[in-house]
Amino acid sequence: MTISIIGLGLIGGSLSLSLRQHRLAQHIIGVENSPAHARRALELGLVAEIETDLAAAVRRADLVVVAVPMDALVTVLPQVLDVTEAHQVVIDVGSTKQALLAAVAGHPRRGRFVAAHPMAGTEHSGPEAAISGLFEGKTVVLCDTAHSDPDAVRVVEQLFQALPMRLLYLGGAEHDLHTAYVSHISHITSFALALTVLEKEKEEQRIFDLASGGFESTVRLAKSAPATWVPIFRQNRLNVLDVLDEHLHQLQHLRELLAREDYNGLTDSIQQANRIRKILP
Amino acid sequence: MTISIIGLGLIGGSLSLSLRQHRLAQHIIGVENSPAHARRALELGLVAEIETDLAAAVRRADLVVVAVPMDALVTVLPQVLDVTEAHQVVIDVGSTKQALLAAVAGHPRRGRFVAAHPMAGTEHSGPEAAISGLFEGKTVVLCDTAHSDPDAVRVVEQLFQALPMRLLYLGGAEHDLHTAYVSHISHITSFALALTVLEKEKEEQRIFDLASGGFESTVRLAKSAPATWVPIFRQNRLNVLDVLDEHLHQLQHLRELLAREDYNGLTDSIQQANRIRKILP
Repeated sequence: MTISIIGLGLIGGSLSLSLRQHRLAQHIIGVENSPAHARRALELGLVAEIETDLAAAVRRADLVVVAVPMDALVTVLPQVLDVTEAHQVVIDVGSTKQALLAAVAGHPRRGRFVAAHPMAGTEHSGPEAAISGLFEGKTVVLCDTAHSDPDAVRVVEQLFQALPMRLLYLGGAEHDLHTAYVSHISHITSFALALTVLEKEKEEQRIFDLASGGFESTVRLAKSAPATWVPIFRQNRLNVLDVLDEHLHQLQHLRELLAREDYNGLTDSIQQANRIRKILP
Repeated sequence: MTISIIGLGLIGGSLSLSLRQHRLAQHIIGVENSPAHARRALELGLVAEIETDLAAAVRRADLVVVAVPMDALVTVLPQVLDVTEAHQVVIDVGSTKQALLAAVAGHPRRGRFVAAHPMAGTEHSGPEAAISGLFEGKTVVLCDTAHSDPDAVRVVEQLFQALPMRLLYLGGAEHDLHTAYVSHISHITSFALALTVLEKEKEEQRIFDLASGGFESTVRLAKSAPATWVPIFRQNRLNVLDVLDEHLHQLQHLRELLAREDYNGLTDSIQQANRIRKILP
């Protein structure tokens, strides 16, 4: 099948590599706003060709993947559906879903759209960040599939299963709540941690010299691009604020235990935190 | 040379493996409080023999490595120095230094002791957690070396350089301040993050299904043992509280920006956080 990928960054570019590697697409067309990124995507062999006309790219494809940042997605997706025919399938790969689902709720071609969120990524962005193997073995969440045509859902299920990815079905609201917990909050804490260390530690060479694996792994996400993450926080604002308030509460509690030298309490709390081992061994 | 290692957990056990692999010790003697850990350390081949008498283990060694948790360290290290002869060298591998240096400040054998902190670890503990290659290429901080005999410092420098590790020299106070920034705070935020998610996300299966690499890397340190970390937080309490307050301030600031929908401000803050790339590429 012919697949058009709108947006050739980390996610769109990596998906293209996976689709080609697993021979799930005969031809992959790329659409990319930034001429520099378009050129680089061709050089890196992420796509076979670049199509500058969005409508033409949609028209020529069996499947369209919209892989632009969340703020662009809510306007690009309706435009894509406007020119989608009844035999075509459109997916997104975005990190929040409620605003997006609302944006296409009344669209005449709503049934051809399947909302998808492959739970994978890195702190890097742009076509240079595309890597093969990013999605293999991971989970992809399909949202509100009852509003998509059954044949469109089947195409998408078969495609992701072939990568292979595990399928998980959630409502849009449920998706946004859970991803606030297990993805968005990690980014906020990592940004705050980087800001803390950069603020307190004026000698940058010291950070470099002393940073061990533990620090690097907690601060890695702080390298992530604002162009990706601000729209995600914006669209999932209430859930993120809610989880952030709980996180602030937990941090304040640990602070209080340490401040009043309640080391038994601190031990109890850390033992509670250790339960994460049961879930993520 | 013969090396005695007191405490055969993650750090002591891994160091033993490295010393043997690089042929820096002809014979390695282990001392271990827990009979189960002692037996396991022998089974895993971490040490050639277990010596149950601390004084005997010290007497038979050219170099003694004290690798017990920080709370035990401040009492074990003076006991080791009590039986140390003028030709022997003693090092610790602990994560905080001021309390320890104070505990041995007036000791007649203070000169034979070199305070060392290899900046490496994992979230696991005990002899099972020992891995080879943990220290190679990392930094080891030597503290207050002016209070150690020059020949003892030379022995320790040569040993760590042979692993190889990079040497960094800091005062004890300076060491504890910097490690609060680049190591201890990461553990606090990770514990708090695990508690947040465990509190908010009652469906543990959902965490497992949805957790992506980003979440796993920020929450990994939350698996760390309270027996290791409570004594570290206790001994570095004022520095940790100070950095924790700055971290709370940064999180509150990000929260305020999101709450009042100041997306330009949020973009600016994330761009500031992205500067961590310059230091940790």
